[in-house]
Amino acid sequence: MATGKINVSVDNIFPLIKKFLYSDHEIFLRELISNATDATLKMKHLTTIGEAKVEYGNPIIEVKADKEGKKLHIIDQGLGMTEEEVKKYINEVAFSGAEEFLNKYEDTAKDSGIIGHFGLGFYSAFMVAHKVEIITKSFKDEPAVHWSCDGSPEFIMEPAEKETRGTEIILHIADDSTEFLEDGKINSLLSKYNKFMPIPIKFGMKTETLPKPEGAKEEDPAPTQEVDNIINNPNPAWTKQPAELKPEDYKSFYRELYPMQFEEPLFHIHLNVDYPFNLTGILYFPKLSNDLNQQKDRIQLYQNQVFVTDNVEGIVPEFLTMLRGVIDSPDIPLNVSRSYLQADGAVKKISSYITRKVADKMNSLFKNDRAEFEAKWNDIKIVIEYGMLSEDKFFDKADKFALYPTVDGSYFTFEELQEKIKDTQTDKDGKTVILYASDKEAQHSYIETAKAKGYEVLLLDSPIIGHLMQKLEGSKENISFARVDADHIDKLIQKEETQISKLSDDEKETLKKELEEAITDKSFTVQLEAMDSDSSPFTITEPEFMRRMKEMQQTGGGGGMFGMGAMPEMYNLIVNTNHPLVSEFLNTKTAKKKERLINQSLDLAKLSKGLLKGKALTDFIKRSYEMVK
Amino acid sequence: MATGKINVSVDNIFPLIKKFLYSDHEIFLRELISNATDATLKMKHLTTIGEAKVEYGNPIIEVKADKEGKKLHIIDQGLGMTEEEVKKYINEVAFSGAEEFLNKYEDTAKDSGIIGHFGLGFYSAFMVAHKVEIITKSFKDEPAVHWSCDGSPEFIMEPAEKETRGTEIILHIADDSTEFLEDGKINSLLSKYNKFMPIPIKFGMKTETLPKPEGAKEEDPAPTQEVDNIINNPNPAWTKQPAELKPEDYKSFYRELYPMQFEEPLFHIHLNVDYPFNLTGILYFPKLSNDLNQQKDRIQLYQNQVFVTDNVEGIVPEFLTMLRGVIDSPDIPLNVSRSYLQADGAVKKISSYITRKVADKMNSLFKNDRAEFEAKWNDIKIVIEYGMLSEDKFFDKADKFALYPTVDGSYFTFEELQEKIKDTQTDKDGKTVILYASDKEAQHSYIETAKAKGYEVLLLDSPIIGHLMQKLEGSKENISFARVDADHIDKLIQKEETQISKLSDDEKETLKKELEEAITDKSFTVQLEAMDSDSSPFTITEPEFMRRMKEMQQTGGGGGMFGMGAMPEMYNLIVNTNHPLVSEFLNTKTAKKKERLINQSLDLAKLSKGLLKGKALTDFIKRSYEMVK
Repeated sequence: MATGKINVSVDNIFPLIKKFLYSDHEIFLRELISNATDATLKMKHLTTIGEAKVEYGNPIIEVKADKEGKKLHIIDQGLGMTEEEVKKYINEVAFSGAEEFLNKYEDTAKDSGIIGHFGLGFYSAFMVAHKVEIITKSFKDEPAVHWSCDGSPEFIMEPAEKETRGTEIILHIADDSTEFLEDGKINSLLSKYNKFMPIPIKFGMKTETLPKPEGAKEEDPAPTQEVDNIINNPNPAWTKQPAELKPEDYKSFYRELYPMQFEEPLFHIHLNVDYPFNLTGILYFPKLSNDLNQQKDRIQLYQNQVFVTDNVEGIVPEFLTMLRGVIDSPDIPLNVSRSYLQADGAVKKISSYITRKVADKMNSLFKNDRAEFEAKWNDIKIVIEYGMLSEDKFFDKADKFALYPTVDGSYFTFEELQEKIKDTQTDKDGKTVILYASDKEAQHSYIETAKAKGYEVLLLDSPIIGHLMQKLEGSKENISFARVDADHIDKLIQKEETQISKLSDDEKETLKKELEEAITDKSFTVQLEAMDSDSSPFTITEPEFMRRMKEMQQTGGGGGMFGMGAMPEMYNLIVNTNHPLVSEFLNTKTAKKKERLINQSLDLAKLSKGLLKGKALTDFIKRSYEMVK
Repeated sequence: MATGKINVSVDNIFPLIKKFLYSDHEIFLRELISNATDATLKMKHLTTIGEAKVEYGNPIIEVKADKEGKKLHIIDQGLGMTEEEVKKYINEVAFSGAEEFLNKYEDTAKDSGIIGHFGLGFYSAFMVAHKVEIITKSFKDEPAVHWSCDGSPEFIMEPAEKETRGTEIILHIADDSTEFLEDGKINSLLSKYNKFMPIPIKFGMKTETLPKPEGAKEEDPAPTQEVDNIINNPNPAWTKQPAELKPEDYKSFYRELYPMQFEEPLFHIHLNVDYPFNLTGILYFPKLSNDLNQQKDRIQLYQNQVFVTDNVEGIVPEFLTMLRGVIDSPDIPLNVSRSYLQADGAVKKISSYITRKVADKMNSLFKNDRAEFEAKWNDIKIVIEYGMLSEDKFFDKADKFALYPTVDGSYFTFEELQEKIKDTQTDKDGKTVILYASDKEAQHSYIETAKAKGYEVLLLDSPIIGHLMQKLEGSKENISFARVDADHIDKLIQKEETQISKLSDDEKETLKKELEEAITDKSFTVQLEAMDSDSSPFTITEPEFMRRMKEMQQTGGGGGMFGMGAMPEMYNLIVNTNHPLVSEFLNTKTAKKKERLINQSLDLAKLSKGLLKGKALTDFIKRSYEMVK
C-alpha cells in the first residue's frame, strides 16, 4: 500500500483559462475592474482600521484605450503590490489570493463586503491580449515592480519607475480582439458590467458647460471645461437605506436602470436583509400586459455592485420574473447552472424571502391605499394570479388582497364578493355561483341579462384565470364559477320557482321537431325553456366545463383532458317558449316563411355570441340591406 | 530583471472543482460514463489497429446502485489502467490525459472520433461522493490496482484482486447527495445524457416475455426471463448513412427522441459533413403553430453521442430553432457562452451549412413533389418566412420556392403570382397590386368584392407576414401589397376608366353633409364614390399603411413608427352614390326615418368589418328581432 498527494499541475495555464474558466471573452474587463475595485476597497479598509498609515483620498479607476499602440490600460489607486506580492499573487496561481486576505482580516472584511476573486480573474486578460504588463507600487514603502508576460508560462519581472500608489495593467490586445480597443465597445461593456460599481470609473473626458460669468452678454457662448467622464454611479439607490430615499429617488433609479423605458413603474419593493443571508435590491412592478412570455428577464443580478446576469431564473420565483429591478447578493453562487441554483439552500431562502416581501408590500398597499391598489390592479393582476397558482404560501397571503373586478368597475376581495352575492346568487343546492365575463363587448347581451336579474358579473380576463378558478373552486367551499354565456341565466343559478310555459306540451314537441328540421347545423342542441316573455327568443350557450378545459389547455398546465383542444365546438340553442316570436313560428303555415323566420332569428342569436361569420354574415348583411329598403 | 515560470499550483483540487469546473452536480454521471465509454472505444481502437492482442468482445458499461451501502458503481470493460497509468492519469491532474493519447495515435484516433476528457472528468465524482475508489485492471498483463481517496488531497494505492479487464469506479455518496442513489433519479440522468452513447449501458435487469413452448395451453402463462436492462441505443439513426435509412426509420427515431410527441414530423433533413468541420444530425420540421415563442429549444446537441444541451441558440440560426432533432459535432466548443459561440468561426460555418441544407431540402421537395409541398406549406411557412426575413442568403434561395396561397386554395410562387396577375391587377401607374386577406371569415365580403372583379386574393396569415411584405416591396420592382379592406376595390387597383355617378354634384354635397351630421362617431371619414349599383351602399375601409405598421409593431422588429401602437383606429366610410338605398337617404324627408336608415346601414357596414360590438350590437339585435316579427 502506498499513499501520496494528488498533484495538480498545469504546465501552461493559458489553454486552461480559455477552455474551462472563462468562456465569454468580454468579461476580462469586468474581471480587471473588479480587481481594481477590490484593491481600492481593501486600501480603504486598511486605512479605516488603521493598518495602513496613508491617506485614502478620492481614488478612481481609469480605463484608457490606445488604439494606435493597440493597448488597453486599467489604472487603479488601490493598495498596489510589492515584489513579494506579485510573486505570490501573480506568479503562483493558487486560486487563493482573496481567500488569504479574507482569512487575515476575516471579521472586519466581511462587514465591508470585500470578497474578491483576485489572482484567477487577472489571467482572463490573456483571452484578449497577447502580452500583459503590470506596473504596481504598494502602499508600503517598497519599490515599484514591472511584470510582463507574453502568454507563455515565462514572465519577466524588473523594478519600475512608478511613483504613485496603485496598479496599472496594460493589455497588448491581440489581433483577433481589436474590437476591445473601440470606444463604443468599451463604453458598452463598462455600462453593462460596471454601471454601479462602488469606485468611480473614468473613461475619457467630457465637456461640461459652466455658468456664464457675471456681466456676460446674451450672445456670448457659455464657458466650458473638460472633466473626467465617470461612467458609473458608485452609490446606486439599492445600496442606501429605504429611509434615505424619497419616492422620486426610486423612480429616477428606475430610469437609470431602464433608460429606454418610458412608462413609470407602479410600485417598488426595497429588499434589505442581512441575516441569514445578505441581500439588497429594489424590485419594481411594471405595467404588465397579458402576454406572459414577452416580459421576463429584466431583473438584473449583481454581486457587490458588479453586474452578473439578467437571468434570475431559479433565484426569483418564476411568477416574479416579470418584475424589474436589481438584486444584489454575495450569497448567490456565480458560475453555476440553473439546476444547481434551484437546489441550493441559501438560494431557496432568498427566493422565499422575496416572495414574502412582495406579498407583504401588496398587502400593505391594499390596506393603506385601497383606491390606488384598485386602480393598478389590472396592471399587476397577472403576477398576483400567477403567484397564487404556483406558490401555496403566496396564495394564502394573496387571498386576502387579490381583487375580483366587476364589469361595472367595482373591486371585491373574495370574502367581500362572497358576502355580497351569497343571498342572491346561491342556488337551490346551497352553492354560490360566481358569474363572470371574459370580454365585456363580446358577451354584452349575456351580461345585461344577468344584471337584469340583479346579479354581479365579474370581469375576469387574465389568460390564466381558468386555472385560478379551478384552484379556488377546489379550496373554497360551496362555490363555483360560471361564465355568463355558459347557460341560460335561470339554469346557471337554479332557484326553486319555475316559469310557466305559454306553450302546451304538444306544442313544445311540435316546435322542437320543426326547429330541429329547420336548423341544419349539427353543432346546436335545441333546448326549450319557459323564460320571461321579453328575454331573447333564441340564446346560444356554451357549457362552462368544456369551454374552460379547452381554454386551460391553451395556456398550458394540467387540468385539461388530453386532446380536448381538437374537439368540435358544441352549443346549446335555448329557445324561449314564452317569446311572441316563438309562438309565431308555430302559427306560421308557409314552410318557406317559417324557415326564413327561424333562420333570421338563429342568425341574430349567432351574432350575439360572435358566431356569425364569413359567407353567412355576408348573406345576412345583404338580406338586411334589402329589409332596410 | 528576473524571469521565471508561472507556477500554477492547486493545493487541493476539490474546492476548485466545486467552484469553477463543474457547477451542475448531476453531470458527474455523464462524465464517468463518458470516461468508461472512452476507455471502451480506445480498447476497440487498439484491437482494430493491432496494438492490443486481446479479444474486444461485446463490452458493456454497468451502473449499479447500492442504496444500503450508499455506493454507486460504474463498471466498464475497457482498456483499464496499470499502476503507472493510475499515477499518471489520476494522481497527476494535468488536464492532458486525452490529449496525450490523441497525440500518440493521432491520425487513426481522429478517424474513430475518440476525443475524451479523461482525467479532469473523473474528479467531478467528488461533487457527490465523500470517498471514491477505483479498481482497475489493464488489458496489459499487469496486476490490478485499487486506488481510493476520501476527498482530501491524500490518496491510497494498493494491489487489487480484480481478474477481468476494465475499470470499476465506486462512489461513496455523500449525505447531501443521496438522491443519486435513487433508481428514478439514475434512470432520468441516464436517459437525459446517455440515451445514445455508443457503448451499451446496463442499469439493473428487466423481465422479457419469451414465446410459449410448442404445445402450451391457452391459459399457460408465457415464460419470462430476466435480461440486462440496456438503457441506451448505441446506434442512433444520425450515426448511420442516409442510404441505410428508410422513411420509417426517420419517423421511429423521431419518436425515440420525443416519446411524448404524437404528431409525426413533416420532413426530415439528414446532416452529414466531415469537411471543413465534422457534423452529423437529423433535423425535423414539426407542425408549427403561429406562436413563435412556444416552440423553440427542442433540438438536442450531442458531442460524439454524449448529450450536451438542448439550447442550440448561436449554433443553429435563430429561424431554425423551431425545428426539432439532433445535431452531433465534436467541433462545437462546450462550456462556452452564447456570445462566444456566435463569434466562433467553426460555429458560423456550421450555422450557414445548416441553413443551406434546409434551403436545399425545401427546394428539392418543391421541385420533386409540389403537391406534397403545397399540402404542408401552412405548417412550415412560419420557418421559411422567418428565414427569408432574417437571412439574406436564405431569402435568395427561398424566393424560388416560397408559396403564396390564395383564399381559394391555389399556391403560387412569387414569380407565378406576378405572371398570373400582371394583366389584371396592374394599375394605371404600372404598379402590380397584390391583394391579400388575413382572415377568410372576417374579411369575407371584401374578398367577394375583389373576386367579383376577377382579382386573385392571397390568404396571408403569418404573424410576421407584414415584415415579409415590406421586404418584398423593397426588393422587387413595381409591386405593392394591399389588404382587401384597405380601400374601396376600385381605389386599391386604380384603372383609367371611371364610373359615372347617378348623383349630381349638388346632391353629393347635400348627401355628404347629411351623412356627417347623422354619423356621430368621429373615427369615420365619409367618402363618396360612384360604384356599381349592386355594390354595398356603405363599406368601411382601413388604410393599408397605418394598419400594417401597427401590426408590425406588435410582432416586434423595426418598421413601425414610435408609439403608433397607441394611436386610435381610423376608418373611411365609403358611400356608394349609385346604390338605390343611398338615393333613398336623399329622398327621405322625415329626419327621424332618414337617421334610422343611415344608422341601420352603418351598423351593417360595421358588422361586415367586425366593428359592431357590445351595446351597439345588442341594440342592433333587439331592433332586428322587432323587424323579424
